[in-house]
Amino acid sequence: MENCTVTGFDWVPPFARGIVRDLRVRWALEEAGVQYAVEWIGLSARKSEDYRRKQPFGMVPALAAGDSRLFESGAIVQLIAERSEALMPAESAGRAETIVWIYAALNTVEPPLDSLLALDLVHGDEEWAPLRRPGLVEEVQDRLAVVAARLEGREFLLDRFTAADILMATVLRLVRHTDLCSTYPPVDAYLRRCEGREPFQRALEGQLADYARNEPAAA
Amino acid sequence: MENCTVTGFDWVPPFARGIVRDLRVRWALEEAGVQYAVEWIGLSARKSEDYRRKQPFGMVPALAAGDSRLFESGAIVQLIAERSEALMPAESAGRAETIVWIYAALNTVEPPLDSLLALDLVHGDEEWAPLRRPGLVEEVQDRLAVVAARLEGREFLLDRFTAADILMATVLRLVRHTDLCSTYPPVDAYLRRCEGREPFQRALEGQLADYARNEPAAA
Repeated sequence: MENCTVTGFDWVPPFARGIVRDLRVRWALEEAGVQYAVEWIGLSARKSEDYRRKQPFGMVPALAAGDSRLFESGAIVQLIAERSEALMPAESAGRAETIVWIYAALNTVEPPLDSLLALDLVHGDEEWAPLRRPGLVEEVQDRLAVVAARLEGREFLLDRFTAADILMATVLRLVRHTDLCSTYPPVDAYLRRCEGREPFQRALEGQLADYARNEPAAA
Repeated sequence: MENCTVTGFDWVPPFARGIVRDLRVRWALEEAGVQYAVEWIGLSARKSEDYRRKQPFGMVPALAAGDSRLFESGAIVQLIAERSEALMPAESAGRAETIVWIYAALNTVEPPLDSLLALDLVHGDEEWAPLRRPGLVEEVQDRLAVVAARLEGREFLLDRFTAADILMATVLRLVRHTDLCSTYPPVDAYLRRCEGREPFQRALEGQLADYARNEPAAA
């Protein structure tokens, strides 16, 4: 991927730092050894017509690489993975299994975890939130139990690190404000294993450094 | 894809008929002209150890094709699409755009729509449901407005029918119990256009016929 530029937010409140989804793309590029630049969009400018030409939903990340203009963290990570064996086996069975677990992370595990994040950190003082929370926690636990069973005796979702681990680990981080992951030892160990990788650390440091640089109080 | 077998539920209550996610896989196979068999799992047996070896989350669909054992409707539809130009352009820009819109359907549009379906049809009599509903409807409308803007002047998400339309149309069907889609004319027309396709009709009739065959009262 040539002339690769990731778009992230220029600043987010503390609760969102380290979980905004450009982290997934930065991490994938770090694992693949692809150089990249970062550009920023302000939280208030993200709904502008201009930005929506890059990202119709007004979200991040977006990726420009050569002539391509991509959005959706899952699509971008998968498309990066297709160009790097560091992220996805080249043979078709391993490739299919990687794709299955990418979708499992994003379409089955992420929705309840992301809902719990929003409930606790965005809607926490709304009347429905404490009433809804127990049932939603059960849904999260249901998913985490399956992920724990899958990881029993495995270091990663497949028999090696793949792009699916980038998506699953960043999904699991959505509930880092709770102790839910740590109650499933295989999930807890897996998350630490993923977060301990140098490419993850570089991606995270990059995201946090950008927010610090753009901190309004520091301006 | 040889010896292709889709797993669906043997029976579901009326509210879920026509939206259970094996429909996505049946539709993709119909569009691609691939013959397939169907096998069924009971709602009560879906959490068994035996079935979880096929589908770890105890959900449908799963797909067996030759030696591969796949799950996650998004992954299965994408992998079918990679073998059929009827579902995805072969050139890399069109392929990337298809994948971007598949993930947009499943990771950005589906979560709030699926939450609204669950709120109305599963949790409707819980105390939190009416309190949460207005905010959730706003989230759904936010997504539908973007899909409507994308479809303005287009028949499909790309400049031709692709696998992304299978995912987006089946996602939009999740809120068919409301009039939300019909308040966005481009979305309403798009959904009718997708549902009017013969392969969709065959897939839907197949799913409904299977439920009718397995109706407990008819046994």
